[in-house]
Amino acid sequence: MDTLFSHATVVTMNDQMSVLPDAFVGVTDGKISYLSPKAPDEQPAEIIDATGMVLMPGLVNAHTHLPMSILKGFADDYALSEWLTAHIFPREDRMDDRCAKAATLLGIAESLRFGVTSVSDMYMFSGAVAEAVAESGIKANLSRGTTLFDDTDFSFDTYPACQELETTFRQWNHYDNGRIKIEASVHGEYTTTYKLWEALSEFAVNNHTGMHVHLSETKSEHESCKEKYGMTPAQILDCHHVWDARAIAAHCVWLEPEDMTLLAKRGVSAVHCPISNLKLGSGIANVTDMVRAGMNVALGTDSVASNNNLDLFEEMKTCALLAKGKSLDPTTLPASAALMMGTICGARAQGRQNECGQIKLGMDADLILLDFTQPHLIPCHNVISQLVYAASGHDVAMTMVRGKILYAEGKFPTIDLGAVVKELTDYAMPLVFHDAPKQADSQKD
Amino acid sequence: MDTLFSHATVVTMNDQMSVLPDAFVGVTDGKISYLSPKAPDEQPAEIIDATGMVLMPGLVNAHTHLPMSILKGFADDYALSEWLTAHIFPREDRMDDRCAKAATLLGIAESLRFGVTSVSDMYMFSGAVAEAVAESGIKANLSRGTTLFDDTDFSFDTYPACQELETTFRQWNHYDNGRIKIEASVHGEYTTTYKLWEALSEFAVNNHTGMHVHLSETKSEHESCKEKYGMTPAQILDCHHVWDARAIAAHCVWLEPEDMTLLAKRGVSAVHCPISNLKLGSGIANVTDMVRAGMNVALGTDSVASNNNLDLFEEMKTCALLAKGKSLDPTTLPASAALMMGTICGARAQGRQNECGQIKLGMDADLILLDFTQPHLIPCHNVISQLVYAASGHDVAMTMVRGKILYAEGKFPTIDLGAVVKELTDYAMPLVFHDAPKQADSQKD
Repeated sequence: MDTLFSHATVVTMNDQMSVLPDAFVGVTDGKISYLSPKAPDEQPAEIIDATGMVLMPGLVNAHTHLPMSILKGFADDYALSEWLTAHIFPREDRMDDRCAKAATLLGIAESLRFGVTSVSDMYMFSGAVAEAVAESGIKANLSRGTTLFDDTDFSFDTYPACQELETTFRQWNHYDNGRIKIEASVHGEYTTTYKLWEALSEFAVNNHTGMHVHLSETKSEHESCKEKYGMTPAQILDCHHVWDARAIAAHCVWLEPEDMTLLAKRGVSAVHCPISNLKLGSGIANVTDMVRAGMNVALGTDSVASNNNLDLFEEMKTCALLAKGKSLDPTTLPASAALMMGTICGARAQGRQNECGQIKLGMDADLILLDFTQPHLIPCHNVISQLVYAASGHDVAMTMVRGKILYAEGKFPTIDLGAVVKELTDYAMPLVFHDAPKQADSQKD
Repeated sequence: MDTLFSHATVVTMNDQMSVLPDAFVGVTDGKISYLSPKAPDEQPAEIIDATGMVLMPGLVNAHTHLPMSILKGFADDYALSEWLTAHIFPREDRMDDRCAKAATLLGIAESLRFGVTSVSDMYMFSGAVAEAVAESGIKANLSRGTTLFDDTDFSFDTYPACQELETTFRQWNHYDNGRIKIEASVHGEYTTTYKLWEALSEFAVNNHTGMHVHLSETKSEHESCKEKYGMTPAQILDCHHVWDARAIAAHCVWLEPEDMTLLAKRGVSAVHCPISNLKLGSGIANVTDMVRAGMNVALGTDSVASNNNLDLFEEMKTCALLAKGKSLDPTTLPASAALMMGTICGARAQGRQNECGQIKLGMDADLILLDFTQPHLIPCHNVISQLVYAASGHDVAMTMVRGKILYAEGKFPTIDLGAVVKELTDYAMPLVFHDAPKQADSQKD
């Protein structure tokens, strides 16, 4: 046994949602090898005393754009179109692989610090993003978000973004025994045409990989699609086989009841991003109806440009609160449901449900420890309530992926944070922001 | 000069919302005595190097119930009436002064840890609450929340809760040069009658003190009042002079446009508690309309039984997000407005606007430092956005009230947290919860 967590309050996230008050969890070769209220006979190589701590599965951030860490809080409180066209797109145009890698490493550090052990990321510069993920030790399903506005002469074999997918897939898919998965991504119905939908779904199905799509995020996107095709985005993409692969549909704010039934039947996972949806004024997704329709619903932070952090604990709390506030019923979406969405539902959305999301013998040791000895977590009447309603990613004291500690007490053993900040300051920021308005100006709003 | 903060990014919250990038703030005899981009000539007794830190005014939690810290997360995800009658009220009935004091000290520790320097509290056991506030060094406006269901033979001079107010007022009002203020409190329209409204408003006016009321928190409370009196709660309380004193109206979820105009005219401050309102399924208050009507709107956490923490940074973020999500307009309630609500608007609600809420010469040194060197706060394009959308109470590295450090790096110089936890564990918890269901049971929901 490599590591033993002793005297932990263990939130297993198993089918009974068992919470073990003073338990022992052992890790061998990156997997959970021991789980018991008693100490093992075997002597472990290392013992972590988890007295006063909660041990739980790491969280899954099922929709984010890590390289956008460099755009954190850059242009807040703007209307969506102005935000995108005047502020975000022009900066993204200037990014390069080197910038994307540094920003991704920063985003991974933040994720690990807040207890996220696996992410589903959609962005450009996918080779650079994969390098950062590989070095850091975090798990990730990565996709090259692909747009296609003019499809004259489109061919998968010549279109640069598709070629990037092909290259990244060959180089990185199944890296480190599946720690990295490379997936296809139709950016969204409104930024693509049917030729791309068919090409990418064919790629995903043939290569047994996943699909990542922005779906019905805003009302105008949803309504424009209905006007154009006489069908909702979920329906028209279905006609072109986009849901044939294991798929993530991010946002799903404006889904109609028929969409939910359809997506449930196709096994599509919705990724609810409540904070980003509020912040951009997109609306409030109807999570309870999606769950009732049989959909798997996971959680995502979206990027830090519309959040503005990667603390999935905030997402769990906000999701439980919004469901109650929207229905005027405080029994809606209890704490246990929010915690499932942040763990096992996320693992399912990533096709990793047999690998992580629970504390169970044989599963990967993707684990986090939270310090429950602080004033805001005392007294503790109910661990699950406390995790969702009172705790924060800041309470995470340790993050482990496959048995390796990637964050503990302010330190990142696999990421040289000083070097990352220097790279951002010296190279990436000047590259992306050399004409940006000064802070004093941007604070006028 | 007693203390000098050097090289701080200073968020002044002055009328121009000036942010000074590398500034010096001096404190003498508990007041802000120096503010400049240059170091002072004078040698201070102590220098706090604030490089990489943000210095801002402490936050004001304008509606809370600190002794309920012992009920944190005790009964979540229940319908409001069941929550109150089956879970909360029976525990409150068992509390005593000793229990209330320990729980209040715990709540104060949590408040200070999250950067709150002043609270408006409404509860029972007001003498014990005042003792805890006095010992801890925090600022507080305290009120004895008063109910009156049967007003036969009611008289201010014999009614126990009114006598408690009288006693607490004589003993504690203006304690430590106004650090404590004792105010009157009509618990709510639905829990009282006009005899109490008139008696307490007379007390508040005659004693030049404030009034603290729960107002239109739930739809049923608001509608029942209209049925009973043909007037809204705001209107009927106005008829009985409740708004004659400086008043806080907590929640204001179901205010009508006429209520807003009336309350603005009377100078009543609304205290928006977005997280509690969502969690209890009460609804979403219309903050933007209140502000447009001319009301001062501050922020409150409400108690940890319906939140479940005292991190006012969460309240600022949630308030800005909800306003956007409700209006589907991301330009609504920008970060600067949320930050004003958490600082100067709170100070105004407490009648302390000339005393704190801004970093300004002559004001009390109620200050907090936030560590901006962590991954989730890098890069920083806009300090005010970062504070509202990316930061957390956990980022607070130091909390100072009137020049005294009350929290720094995990330590509370005025609160013996170990003794408080022991008192809660050995005395208060057995007193309040001796028949409570075991944790395993309460987690079934």
